[in-house]
Amino acid sequence: MEEIKDIKIEKSITVKELTKQLASSGFQAQNLGAAIEILKEARENNAKTFLSFTSNMAASGLRGIFIDLIKNKKVDVIVTSSGSIDEDLIRSKMPYLQGSFEADDIKLGEQGINRMGNIFVPNDRYEFLDEEVKIILERIHARKKDMTASELLKEVGLEWKHEDSFIVQAAKNGVEVFCPGITDGSFGMQLTFFKGKNKDFRIDLLTDFQKIIDVASTNEKKCGIILGGGISKHHTIISTLMGGGFDYAVYVNSNSPYRGSLSSATTEEAKSWGKISSDAKSVTIHGDAAIVFPLLIASLD
Amino acid sequence: MEEIKDIKIEKSITVKELTKQLASSGFQAQNLGAAIEILKEARENNAKTFLSFTSNMAASGLRGIFIDLIKNKKVDVIVTSSGSIDEDLIRSKMPYLQGSFEADDIKLGEQGINRMGNIFVPNDRYEFLDEEVKIILERIHARKKDMTASELLKEVGLEWKHEDSFIVQAAKNGVEVFCPGITDGSFGMQLTFFKGKNKDFRIDLLTDFQKIIDVASTNEKKCGIILGGGISKHHTIISTLMGGGFDYAVYVNSNSPYRGSLSSATTEEAKSWGKISSDAKSVTIHGDAAIVFPLLIASLD
Amino acid sequence: MEEIKDIKIEKSITVKELTKQLASSGFQAQNLGAAIEILKEARENNAKTFLSFTSNMAASGLRGIFIDLIKNKKVDVIVTSSGSIDEDLIRSKMPYLQGSFEADDIKLGEQGINRMGNIFVPNDRYEFLDEEVKIILERIHARKKDMTASELLKEVGLEWKHEDSFIVQAAKNGVEVFCPGITDGSFGMQLTFFKGKNKDFRIDLLTDFQKIIDVASTNEKKCGIILGGGISKHHTIISTLMGGGFDYAVYVNSNSPYRGSLSSATTEEAKSWGKISSDAKSVTIHGDAAIVFPLLIASLD
Amino acid sequence: MEEIKDIKIEKSITVKELTKQLASSGFQAQNLGAAIEILKEARENNAKTFLSFTSNMAASGLRGIFIDLIKNKKVDVIVTSSGSIDEDLIRSKMPYLQGSFEADDIKLGEQGINRMGNIFVPNDRYEFLDEEVKIILERIHARKKDMTASELLKEVGLEWKHEDSFIVQAAKNGVEVFCPGITDGSFGMQLTFFKGKNKDFRIDLLTDFQKIIDVASTNEKKCGIILGGGISKHHTIISTLMGGGFDYAVYVNSNSPYRGSLSSATTEEAKSWGKISSDAKSVTIHGDAAIVFPLLIASLD
Repeated sequence: MEEIKDIKIEKSITVKELTKQLASSGFQAQNLGAAIEILKEARENNAKTFLSFTSNMAASGLRGIFIDLIKNKKVDVIVTSSGSIDEDLIRSKMPYLQGSFEADDIKLGEQGINRMGNIFVPNDRYEFLDEEVKIILERIHARKKDMTASELLKEVGLEWKHEDSFIVQAAKNGVEVFCPGITDGSFGMQLTFFKGKNKDFRIDLLTDFQKIIDVASTNEKKCGIILGGGISKHHTIISTLMGGGFDYAVYVNSNSPYRGSLSSATTEEAKSWGKISSDAKSVTIHGDAAIVFPLLIASLD
Repeated sequence: MEEIKDIKIEKSITVKELTKQLASSGFQAQNLGAAIEILKEARENNAKTFLSFTSNMAASGLRGIFIDLIKNKKVDVIVTSSGSIDEDLIRSKMPYLQGSFEADDIKLGEQGINRMGNIFVPNDRYEFLDEEVKIILERIHARKKDMTASELLKEVGLEWKHEDSFIVQAAKNGVEVFCPGITDGSFGMQLTFFKGKNKDFRIDLLTDFQKIIDVASTNEKKCGIILGGGISKHHTIISTLMGGGFDYAVYVNSNSPYRGSLSSATTEEAKSWGKISSDAKSVTIHGDAAIVFPLLIASLD
Repeated sequence: MEEIKDIKIEKSITVKELTKQLASSGFQAQNLGAAIEILKEARENNAKTFLSFTSNMAASGLRGIFIDLIKNKKVDVIVTSSGSIDEDLIRSKMPYLQGSFEADDIKLGEQGINRMGNIFVPNDRYEFLDEEVKIILERIHARKKDMTASELLKEVGLEWKHEDSFIVQAAKNGVEVFCPGITDGSFGMQLTFFKGKNKDFRIDLLTDFQKIIDVASTNEKKCGIILGGGISKHHTIISTLMGGGFDYAVYVNSNSPYRGSLSSATTEEAKSWGKISSDAKSVTIHGDAAIVFPLLIASLD
Repeated sequence: MEEIKDIKIEKSITVKELTKQLASSGFQAQNLGAAIEILKEARENNAKTFLSFTSNMAASGLRGIFIDLIKNKKVDVIVTSSGSIDEDLIRSKMPYLQGSFEADDIKLGEQGINRMGNIFVPNDRYEFLDEEVKIILERIHARKKDMTASELLKEVGLEWKHEDSFIVQAAKNGVEVFCPGITDGSFGMQLTFFKGKNKDFRIDLLTDFQKIIDVASTNEKKCGIILGGGISKHHTIISTLMGGGFDYAVYVNSNSPYRGSLSSATTEEAKSWGKISSDAKSVTIHGDAAIVFPLLIASLD
């Protein structure tokens, strides 16, 4: 067994130098170190990489990392929740604001500010989104009536004018974006209203599930990086079930696995299902993706 | 201000007698007491009641309570995740098993047992589901090709032979079941495979979102009981946005609101968005629905 | 393996009837059921019972249950933190108040109200405590200068005029109260000030540790009920180390075991140390003592 | 209000460059950024700095940072739990080992290995500690019979032969180490056994409380860095109560504040008590000290 070693912080220490030390420090620092090794090996073996995240992360600075991973071809498939589309498209043009967890929510509501933890989103952001999405849907509908959600997101990415967006960059770089709960947000609400006026407009989620199953049923090695829980987490791992499960998997999650929910389930639990291969290299970091994920990515190159 | 009072446990104390005391005991016991008062008032005012839960809860004994609430017309709308359909249909015929959180997941996998916290689900359960769903989809498809997810779930409820099911009881009792992420599970996988063979088979989620928005845009008082997080939580509350938000809301959730995720957001945060009305009576119980929800329901009658 | 069974809530259901059902419901409800069986068996075998709790619990309604357990000779040893002495002595005379987690703490401070979660404690409570403790220490000191913390707490219990107190009832019923961190609170501060004026006043904690080790080094069966974490948890379990560890143990704790702290460690982890016997019957309820403990106790008789 | 900004990870990014970006990323990354600014200002104003931590942290790599902070005169007062003394003294000579959270605890027990999360501690470590402490206590007792816990720890630090220890470095560098629950661990057990043989051996905790109150009742600015909960957290903040509370305070804690325990209470709650001054700069990082604390310290120079 390896020894626990004390951390020594030198002046101007790099993230990589620090996380190398964290690996032998214990507790979740140790799990973080294990995750770095897993992701390094996955990259060396050119594993097909699935990245799943929740919409609050797209509202935070993590979105910048997602965009760069896509541009640099470090991920192959994105699975996310509908809110991520909202946050991504809005923030490509209008910033979100630093707020406070302790704010008075009723006052915020009166001021037209929506709170997402300590991130504040003024109403005009969603008004902007609504207007822009209406226009784009018209354009897409003019050439295509029936498509899967991932096809729609590709079309949106190609139409959207603001480049600083993971939807846009995914479309340009051939990265598939799956969103199995696509109606559940502001973008989804616009889809619904558009459907109300255009009965021939159809978003097919059934075929998209087949598509991600096909992507995951590959002879290549597969790697899952699963940030947070929810439908994006489950959809990512269930998609690999028929392809033998992930060969490499890192979960970053801060919920208790003792409630029995999938959102908080560990990489170990996934092995009983075959969603992660029984001989996979995998680890759950019981921590906060807002801090852990930048450390993870900065330690890989 | 009311006083904190010591709890006195008499022999054969009823749940109702105990929770009345918990209300003045402090911490989450106090929040539980507040929730009971909110739900009582909602019932007295005939509030339209939305119940949202996650699939692990359908795998647990809570499902019995969901079924009775539906039979007794105590809820009007159900919003849940796709896994709930799996667990409900299977358990109407084949039981799940009491397991352990500490089991060896690789051994379980070898034995064909899937672990969901401390609930074990042998593979034959899913095989049963797959077979039955195939048959039912054929029957439904024979008469209907294009429908919303909630229409499909109603059809399934009418076709399913085993009565001990919330899907069946909802269909029989006129309770709408919404499932915005319907593909994301075993039932969803069968939908996908069926779609592969039957191109004219269509599940429309866009129109379903309009439908729940319409249901929630009522002049009646609205009450939300939101157990756990995920897409079912968010979909329930976003649906009320245009109708002015919930007038009564109880969340039961054990995650930390300090991650900024919707799954862990409090009833207060929802007021900044208008998903809960600014003058609503609402409370978040930071606790475990597996224990808290039975206490809540047993305290209402 | 036993089956997972649906819960059925009958009108006027008793706590005992409900928890019997929770035992086969899954997740922490299942763990609660296991804990009830363990404590029943411990009682049947007349196990010597150690109860450990944190000071916030003494500030809540749980204190009433602690008092009754002592009066009814259902516990033999109490281990708690210093704050519990404060809350117990104050509340024997002056009530704490129901507050709110969301209160403005700076305003509360200006109003002379101290917040403990959603329990409010006006400053006059502590002023009352300070005055009363000063008087009592004078009386005790007149007859005894050097004593262990548990001896001191016994003296306090015999001197205190207000009967509705676990300190008083423990003194009267021969239940030892250990408080290894006795200085760390308002009562402790008065001890310190008294020591400043009376150099011959001595509280011996070293001998108290020997005393609890002796109590725990018995041929009788030993049962530990450990609510929350902190020094009271660790002190309880380390005390049994030389006596072979607990034969029955129930932890109720809501923290994540993935930080590696003793406060959040499970009953399993304790078996590696021998603080719980390797063949003990034990379970960790990953839940909230404010709600779980009343259910547990109400299910025993 | 400041904008939320996307994170950009450059090759060989330093920790300081990353945390500067995290500050405008949202959620706990934002709180981490706020904490860095608070600690920078505290250092610029030469605030007297109190550092509190739990024993699991002394078992991990964080101990290296504690030692360096002491050597570099960046902290003035340490408050910790008794276990920290054990881990520190042992690790100055014998390493702890990297283990796993999922290990079989009964097997570990049979192998003589104690588990602390994913850190393994073989029995011989505690045997070493017991032997060494016996010898040292004899030497100290030969010259001093009655002392406070902090005086004892200073004596131990001066006697201990292995320099790589925070106890040793604190003694050499004039940093006070307070341990209000000093009996509660292996070192504490040796104190107890020694007391059994030497009735004139006395550890005075009452006077130590006065000492830390005096240290905290200063006209200088005061800064509290509170890692984790337990008695070390509470003792640190109660000590400042008479001196007006902390002027700067950073908590790092991963427990839910909704249980009402002091261990999980926020910096805001402390302001209602005056343990943190109402105009203090303070923040709670709802996160894991094992990862957060190294980031914090590496961002200060």
